[in-house]
Amino acid sequence: MGVQALIPFKPENPKTRLSCVLSPPEREQFARAMLSDVVGAVLGAGCSPRVISTAPFGFAGCPVEVIPSGLNEALNGVLSGMDGPVLVIMADLPLADAPAVRRLLETGMDVAIVPGRGGGTNAIYLSRGSSFRVDYYGASFLKHVRIARERGLSCEVVDSFRLHTDVDEEEDLVELLIHGEGSSRQFLVERGFELAIDRGRVGIKRVQAGGREHPESP
Amino acid sequence: MGVQALIPFKPENPKTRLSCVLSPPEREQFARAMLSDVVGAVLGAGCSPRVISTAPFGFAGCPVEVIPSGLNEALNGVLSGMDGPVLVIMADLPLADAPAVRRLLETGMDVAIVPGRGGGTNAIYLSRGSSFRVDYYGASFLKHVRIARERGLSCEVVDSFRLHTDVDEEEDLVELLIHGEGSSRQFLVERGFELAIDRGRVGIKRVQAGGREHPESP
Repeated sequence: MGVQALIPFKPENPKTRLSCVLSPPEREQFARAMLSDVVGAVLGAGCSPRVISTAPFGFAGCPVEVIPSGLNEALNGVLSGMDGPVLVIMADLPLADAPAVRRLLETGMDVAIVPGRGGGTNAIYLSRGSSFRVDYYGASFLKHVRIARERGLSCEVVDSFRLHTDVDEEEDLVELLIHGEGSSRQFLVERGFELAIDRGRVGIKRVQAGGREHPESP
Repeated sequence: MGVQALIPFKPENPKTRLSCVLSPPEREQFARAMLSDVVGAVLGAGCSPRVISTAPFGFAGCPVEVIPSGLNEALNGVLSGMDGPVLVIMADLPLADAPAVRRLLETGMDVAIVPGRGGGTNAIYLSRGSSFRVDYYGASFLKHVRIARERGLSCEVVDSFRLHTDVDEEEDLVELLIHGEGSSRQFLVERGFELAIDRGRVGIKRVQAGGREHPESP
């Protein structure tokens, strides 16, 4: 069995900052499509994915464990019992691919981190899960680097834009349309999203099933 | 002599989208500090940097050539005479480091690209400069991939957030304060910029020389 990959997930009312372009059921479907892409990437890198969900939901890609507590509490509870190597990777990284995940596993360090945009932590590898405790929210990247240092753990930052790009807002969908290769890009394309280039700036537009354009804001 | 690294630069009124946080002379100084960081990264990777500037300016880090035409015209004019390997790298990538540049040089492909956020091209390596023509602006990443395909050139996308992160707007300064290691981060710190965490979101604030805070917008 490869490295355990914990993927925290919130199935209900996810990705609220995409409300301007996706309806509530679409946001749920889109979040699951992104989860599928992340599961595919970690499987491709030889990991054993394990979704840690705040609530039950239908998902066939890998085992799902329901832990209805907060992100840090849920993850630290699971990590405390894990003496082997663990990857914790966010579910909203639809550009994740197996080579990027492999680079994270192969640094030889006790801890390897890929920061998210704005100081978050998108993926963190721990050579021994129980040696660490996670502290998400705010500038969690800096907190995780500090926790590693305080515990005497060697730590490397892995330089990947695929794992750095978390999808939260409309402009992030541009990245997915350009660089995505999986089911979440497919989801957007089937819903009529495409790139729109306006005065040199790249954005998105949504074309109705019948081919008629409508503005992407409500 | 290593790979020639062309670095286009505009010394006058640069980085206008940072006007809300930096005065005009500060924007000029900051743009030059970012250029210094990029020059340092390409030197560290064994390249020979060569700044292609729209106008003369004082810079001691490497040779500067003044070509007052548009970006594409200037670069394609230079590239057409270059039969060796060339790197074209933007001047606003202050997180650039030697390992990331080296990965770009070592793919073994005819062309290697690091996309910028929003479909741009932040760095492009060409095993033979004259085999290619650049086409910046808009979704230049997609254009460059297509140009490579049309010319029968092998092409790889290099996965680096350090080279993916171009600094254009206030929120990009967060990335520089967190991940920067060079003179442009130093510039910001000396001007009183620091991270500000407000309700879980990470931003920046500016503290006056005397220690008094003032809002970062005019």
